[in-house]
Amino acid sequence: MSKSVRIIGIDPGLRRCGWGIVDALDNRLSFVAAGTVTPPIDGMLADRLAMLAAGLKEVLTQHQPEEAAVEETFVNAGARSALILGQARGVALVTPAQHGLFVAEYATNLVKKSVVGTGHAEKKQVELMVRTLLPTANFKGADASDALAVAICHAHHRVSARRMGALL
Amino acid sequence: MSKSVRIIGIDPGLRRCGWGIVDALDNRLSFVAAGTVTPPIDGMLADRLAMLAAGLKEVLTQHQPEEAAVEETFVNAGARSALILGQARGVALVTPAQHGLFVAEYATNLVKKSVVGTGHAEKKQVELMVRTLLPTANFKGADASDALAVAICHAHHRVSARRMGALL
Repeated sequence: MSKSVRIIGIDPGLRRCGWGIVDALDNRLSFVAAGTVTPPIDGMLADRLAMLAAGLKEVLTQHQPEEAAVEETFVNAGARSALILGQARGVALVTPAQHGLFVAEYATNLVKKSVVGTGHAEKKQVELMVRTLLPTANFKGADASDALAVAICHAHHRVSARRMGALL
Repeated sequence: MSKSVRIIGIDPGLRRCGWGIVDALDNRLSFVAAGTVTPPIDGMLADRLAMLAAGLKEVLTQHQPEEAAVEETFVNAGARSALILGQARGVALVTPAQHGLFVAEYATNLVKKSVVGTGHAEKKQVELMVRTLLPTANFKGADASDALAVAICHAHHRVSARRMGALL
């Protein structure tokens, strides 16, 4: 007998960190909630990161996901931008792990491939497919859409992993 | 009447994260403790970051520093290395902030200048000056030495800041 698993996807960012939660039962997905944590853009970096962590903790406490997936953002910017993104990403990874969740990482291309069918999809195509796969989804913005996409990606890959496990 | 302030310096890293604690009373510094948090090098990234956070939390709980200073590591590597370092740095910044500490950041050059007198000092020179400034210091390794250096840097700059405030 299958059991539904609640998955949170996170699209890390210091100014806008998207999150999206789905329930996965075998191949069926249903939308739970999605949104964006937006820490203040001023102030000490450590405090902004703490507010990002607090925002994510609130989501974890409210919706009680059981597994997490974080996008392994493709870095095509300079080292300085990568360091800044890395700091937000560190918080996005560590917060669900501290909450006891299994935290998977997926490359951006794999997320797009899982949702749209090609690794080079545009943001708009990703959002269109997220809305198609989760018809009851109620969210705004590319950050929440990307977060739902990584949650969907994890749902697909954890099912595959379970099937492969069953064949052993 | 002056009051002693306990400062933790942190030199972030995913494999080796140095920490060093000093008590600062005006210009006088005294060594409290120093060490290195070494999360396992295997396993899921989120779990390794959670172990880094747990190690730092343990140090904060045991030694109760009141202010923190983190080195703003100079990034001369590629974007990928910067992203990895950024993740550890995010955890090093957010953990003391979540503990209620004020968390300052100092550029590597300023740390070296504060401790050695020049922004282009070698690691060995930094360690020699740390041992001179903190004669009772008992630590091993460059990570703990660098962490004590950033704590000393913060001690100097918070005193200057206080003096400037007094002139207003």
